[in-house]
Amino acid sequence: MFDLNSDMGESFGAFSIGNDGAVLKLVSSANIATGFHAGDPLVMVSTVQTAIAHGVRIGAHIGYQDIAGFGRRDMEYDPKLLEAETIYQIGALQAIARSLGAEVAYVKPHGALYNRIAFDPNQAEPVIAGIKAADPSLKLMGLAGSPVLQWAADAGLGTISEAFADRAYTPEGKLVPRSQPGAVLHDPVVAAAQALAFALGEPITAIDGSKVHVRAESLCVHGDNPAALVLIEHIRQKLSDAGVGVGHDR
Amino acid sequence: MFDLNSDMGESFGAFSIGNDGAVLKLVSSANIATGFHAGDPLVMVSTVQTAIAHGVRIGAHIGYQDIAGFGRRDMEYDPKLLEAETIYQIGALQAIARSLGAEVAYVKPHGALYNRIAFDPNQAEPVIAGIKAADPSLKLMGLAGSPVLQWAADAGLGTISEAFADRAYTPEGKLVPRSQPGAVLHDPVVAAAQALAFALGEPITAIDGSKVHVRAESLCVHGDNPAALVLIEHIRQKLSDAGVGVGHDR
Amino acid sequence: MFDLNSDMGESFGAFSIGNDGAVLKLVSSANIATGFHAGDPLVMVSTVQTAIAHGVRIGAHIGYQDIAGFGRRDMEYDPKLLEAETIYQIGALQAIARSLGAEVAYVKPHGALYNRIAFDPNQAEPVIAGIKAADPSLKLMGLAGSPVLQWAADAGLGTISEAFADRAYTPEGKLVPRSQPGAVLHDPVVAAAQALAFALGEPITAIDGSKVHVRAESLCVHGDNPAALVLIEHIRQKLSDAGVGVGHDR
Amino acid sequence: MFDLNSDMGESFGAFSIGNDGAVLKLVSSANIATGFHAGDPLVMVSTVQTAIAHGVRIGAHIGYQDIAGFGRRDMEYDPKLLEAETIYQIGALQAIARSLGAEVAYVKPHGALYNRIAFDPNQAEPVIAGIKAADPSLKLMGLAGSPVLQWAADAGLGTISEAFADRAYTPEGKLVPRSQPGAVLHDPVVAAAQALAFALGEPITAIDGSKVHVRAESLCVHGDNPAALVLIEHIRQKLSDAGVGVGHDR
Repeated sequence: MFDLNSDMGESFGAFSIGNDGAVLKLVSSANIATGFHAGDPLVMVSTVQTAIAHGVRIGAHIGYQDIAGFGRRDMEYDPKLLEAETIYQIGALQAIARSLGAEVAYVKPHGALYNRIAFDPNQAEPVIAGIKAADPSLKLMGLAGSPVLQWAADAGLGTISEAFADRAYTPEGKLVPRSQPGAVLHDPVVAAAQALAFALGEPITAIDGSKVHVRAESLCVHGDNPAALVLIEHIRQKLSDAGVGVGHDR
Repeated sequence: MFDLNSDMGESFGAFSIGNDGAVLKLVSSANIATGFHAGDPLVMVSTVQTAIAHGVRIGAHIGYQDIAGFGRRDMEYDPKLLEAETIYQIGALQAIARSLGAEVAYVKPHGALYNRIAFDPNQAEPVIAGIKAADPSLKLMGLAGSPVLQWAADAGLGTISEAFADRAYTPEGKLVPRSQPGAVLHDPVVAAAQALAFALGEPITAIDGSKVHVRAESLCVHGDNPAALVLIEHIRQKLSDAGVGVGHDR
Repeated sequence: MFDLNSDMGESFGAFSIGNDGAVLKLVSSANIATGFHAGDPLVMVSTVQTAIAHGVRIGAHIGYQDIAGFGRRDMEYDPKLLEAETIYQIGALQAIARSLGAEVAYVKPHGALYNRIAFDPNQAEPVIAGIKAADPSLKLMGLAGSPVLQWAADAGLGTISEAFADRAYTPEGKLVPRSQPGAVLHDPVVAAAQALAFALGEPITAIDGSKVHVRAESLCVHGDNPAALVLIEHIRQKLSDAGVGVGHDR
Repeated sequence: MFDLNSDMGESFGAFSIGNDGAVLKLVSSANIATGFHAGDPLVMVSTVQTAIAHGVRIGAHIGYQDIAGFGRRDMEYDPKLLEAETIYQIGALQAIARSLGAEVAYVKPHGALYNRIAFDPNQAEPVIAGIKAADPSLKLMGLAGSPVLQWAADAGLGTISEAFADRAYTPEGKLVPRSQPGAVLHDPVVAAAQALAFALGEPITAIDGSKVHVRAESLCVHGDNPAALVLIEHIRQKLSDAGVGVGHDR
């Protein structure tokens, strides 16, 4: 069993984004935007409904309060505000999920917040504290190989380490920054092979050709363009051929 | 026992509003803004903390998503969005309250939403449905004498009927519109006497001098100016002299 | 010469909407969203650039401050605020247009504001006052047959009366409300014929089969779906066949 | 003649902030918030009106689009968006000022944007480009001793260098960071003496007791608390005793 997760519910009012209906048929975990960087309460309701219909695990995709920047802009934050916003967003999605008979299982920070907490304890700590305050049974989904997973575990939270099929890794097991050549793996065959390595717990091939072990429990996939959907199909086929189902422990 | 409620937690970021510390010592129920028309997650945390410290009942003060208009502007709403926003706001405050060991006990819509749902079933229905979906044990606080209380009761919700000490009533038991002369009772002695009548279940004197019965379980008071605080003190004294405590059933 | 106008620049941050590149080749006037109901400053810059490249007239598409509702929700407004917001939005687009060597020629309110000011002097007056205050040479584009055009003319503003190709009209020359059957003309041949009648100043066929005269100087077209683009092509062909060019006086 | 400037018009909807009426009697330049970090169009109108009534020079106080953080949070920005937002905000205030018979004379970035552009060319360049694009006759008000003033001058903009009466300076003429002891001069006598030194072009006493020359054409003062108003009075008295009037060249 290997988990595929994808960002969902990013539409906002009259602004439609993504292809949630198609992607929800292909993944096992849905990161549902909670209205701060994308999404709105009605989109949250309909996305939770679709996730339930497909038996997909629900995660709270929390973000900076920055819908104009889609939560992709690095921002300074008062830690107390960040903790409070974490609780607020989780609670909002929990209430919507429960009203529909479902539960939120994990929290995945979005965009700039995701990247920031992976390595910066000043923002990681309030996010972890906020998750614990909201519901200590929630897991934190974070970047495989980054310290935030250990910080969350130290605080008593369950964690889900996440890797990327279409991103190159350094020999140290870190993501090659997007600004560098070769950072994105455009060949779906290569990307699917990397996905399978993650799923089987085998080492992947780093950008310099060396082998590196990146422990990952979930794979982030996207569905916002046709090529992305093709990549998901490739990955699913590769996993299936190897006898690995798409799903997660609970 | 007679309940005094007041709007709380309306500050927003660097923008301070109200005098919550002083008012929370004088009331028994706090309507805490949930971030759509006023308030923010950090203000919600600190306001819940202060409410707990004073043993004050916590209500979700939900509103239209209109911080620029402070939720005071009448707006058309997609009923499905209004229901989803109701669940969202309640859930956000519930998570914050629970993280601090408290519970939300009731929901009081704010401003234009309050006035709208009092008489308009098109907006009342989604608010009632949203409260039920979030938590059917939550009560709806609404305008005494308006049909929304019956609609909520018909849907199975508990209700809290609310009256105003400093507003004149028509012979039919409705609020005299603010646009009419005599709508606001500026004399604290008159207002406190009206408050006591509500508390004792006695008829009040309508604007035309006739007597009218308005059944109310809670009295809305304000604390955003010195005169308002003086009025609360008058009301508390008047209640105390009559042997009526400030508080509520639970 | 007959003017075709279309709403443009409604994308917002990461949220893309519309098909501006295709539509700007087909129309003579672009209603550019000014950031209150849709659009953002960077989208405004790129839309003005594209409008200039196609020689298209630039209008300020002002709206209620309600990006969550896309400016489509009826809202109450303090008239003084509405007037100030009108000046603010016009000035913002003027500065962007001038920085690129262009000028704003007219103002078209959007969505709920458009419908409201067509008949409600309480909101029409501050919009007219705001346009005059910002620049009295700006024209107001408004609903053909509605009183706002006369109110604007009385205030000394130039006006552009606007009709719709794909909407049915009453025998009195008003739009048939969308809630009524037959309100939308789905047949592009019928719609294009109606467009030509507007362009030639001939009467159109009302919903009851009678003939009615609706004086219009501009036709609103849309480009947000393939069928809409087909309709524009039909209209352009019909106009061309009748020897009517697409454009406007200045 | 020495210029005193103060931030103005930071109220937002129902949220009141500052003491503009009192401060506008004491300063010669008003930095008027343009709605992105604070202020709203109606507040802009009333603040411009008051500035005109007191003969005070008008500046555009532009900021990050972050009303929840009052523009005080450091944020990454797409340079093209920052340039477009600069033009947008300037144009909005220009239209309001012109509608009232006044002109915007300068631009002062606010809060985190102010601090950022003082030393970071990546954000300074788009702000400078935006000012030039909106109106090359506008001056940029920036931190005395920081490179942004030179960058602006190199781009052909006029500049206004700004110092602070109540902040300690390093021997190099830079502000002592607020995180360090002694960063804020709490004694109004000391602060007023420093203000006079700026006004006379004399060296000030740095935090280590050495003398340093900081060339400043304007002094930033605040009015949001009684002590701040007292400090302004001290400064005005000190300047007056030395025969220096409050005002600016234009």
